[in-house]
Amino acid sequence: MPVENEPLPDETRPAAKSELTRALILETAMRLFQERGYDKTTMRAIAKEAGVSVGNAYYYYASKEHLIQGFYDRIAAEHQAAVRSVLEQENDLQARLAGVLRAWLDVAAPYHEFAAQFFKNAADPDSPLSPFSTESAHAREAAIAVHREVLAGSRAKVPAELADVLPELMWLSQMGLVLYWVFDRSPDRERSRRLADRGARLTARGVSLSRFRVLRPLVHEVHELFTDFLPGMAQTVAGRKGGTG
Amino acid sequence: MPVENEPLPDETRPAAKSELTRALILETAMRLFQERGYDKTTMRAIAKEAGVSVGNAYYYYASKEHLIQGFYDRIAAEHQAAVRSVLEQENDLQARLAGVLRAWLDVAAPYHEFAAQFFKNAADPDSPLSPFSTESAHAREAAIAVHREVLAGSRAKVPAELADVLPELMWLSQMGLVLYWVFDRSPDRERSRRLADRGARLTARGVSLSRFRVLRPLVHEVHELFTDFLPGMAQTVAGRKGGTG
Repeated sequence: MPVENEPLPDETRPAAKSELTRALILETAMRLFQERGYDKTTMRAIAKEAGVSVGNAYYYYASKEHLIQGFYDRIAAEHQAAVRSVLEQENDLQARLAGVLRAWLDVAAPYHEFAAQFFKNAADPDSPLSPFSTESAHAREAAIAVHREVLAGSRAKVPAELADVLPELMWLSQMGLVLYWVFDRSPDRERSRRLADRGARLTARGVSLSRFRVLRPLVHEVHELFTDFLPGMAQTVAGRKGGTG
Repeated sequence: MPVENEPLPDETRPAAKSELTRALILETAMRLFQERGYDKTTMRAIAKEAGVSVGNAYYYYASKEHLIQGFYDRIAAEHQAAVRSVLEQENDLQARLAGVLRAWLDVAAPYHEFAAQFFKNAADPDSPLSPFSTESAHAREAAIAVHREVLAGSRAKVPAELADVLPELMWLSQMGLVLYWVFDRSPDRERSRRLADRGARLTARGVSLSRFRVLRPLVHEVHELFTDFLPGMAQTVAGRKGGTG
């Protein structure tokens, strides 16, 4: 009789193959997007290049847009893995945040050229390809979760009323860094790395000022402004409130 | 004998004609940019459509880029005229700022479609077409001067050490509104108008908090971050310091 906890090769193999096919399609798409541009690359061309049928490609990714969401999810997952060491070793807020931002720049480095040409599609907050869209919620929530951990695992004292709001604002400031990085042509994106450090210092100082009660309404107001005017953010907030209360 | 202070028609007429030609070229260029796209419109096509020689077009505007700077200058000049009434009538900071931001949305309204397609050229901070570039300094300084007046003519009490820094930060927040407006598809840009009002309220609250000394280093640090990382901003600051001291 087989041991119950042993893997069941016959059942897991198809799932593993399926994941490989999914990854192959995503990698092929990213390569073609980089080579030919996002607008000019068709699902048909991606399927052909990946050696799968068009129907198969559509089975895994319903549209090019879904491929971009897959790409965002992959970046988010790689980033979550890359930040483990700094989050386990550091308890200083500034060092944790700088480490997380620099790790993002490292993870995203191979896609810099693509990001620059793709930017015009993602800059529109109403586009499903925007990091603020409803469609990007999955990747965005993973990214915000990293900032929640940055804050929660630090020595910084944060008032309870700001504990939910600050990680979302920290992620918004990361989006500012991403915008800067997209256009950064300095060697090895050195300017973006310096901005990551400076941004981390500024954020850590801002967080330490949140101990002053007089400031807190302003922090809430900044946060409300973002959630009221960026379509996907309101949903993220609703999801977080639904999940915690 | 003619009276000395009387206008000299024979001397002024050529200058006026020259200004008309310059304006005609700019208007023709803006129309063609809107119709055909910035990238696809040549100086030759602009000259032909305006009914001037190519040499004449280049005499007034050395390149397409200079036409965009001419456009920025025109928007800045129209905005400066449009804000006169609100700046003369209001002394409440929030009302002054909301009026100035709404006036900008009114002045820019005819160019909304152009702004959306032109955005990808202007979003790169290293591009001469960016509002943060060295080349855009003239239009930017006019725009910052409006914010200096918004602040100086208000009842708000501003610490001397922040009097130079705040108008530049207020202009930066206006650039945030412009970015939002570029992608705003709501009827009559109603969402941008609401964002202008909300942004004005937030800024006024932020300025009133600047009476707390503990906050001021953070304001300086935010300002320094922008001037250190946006190439044209450092120049603006240097120019302001050179001009006042």
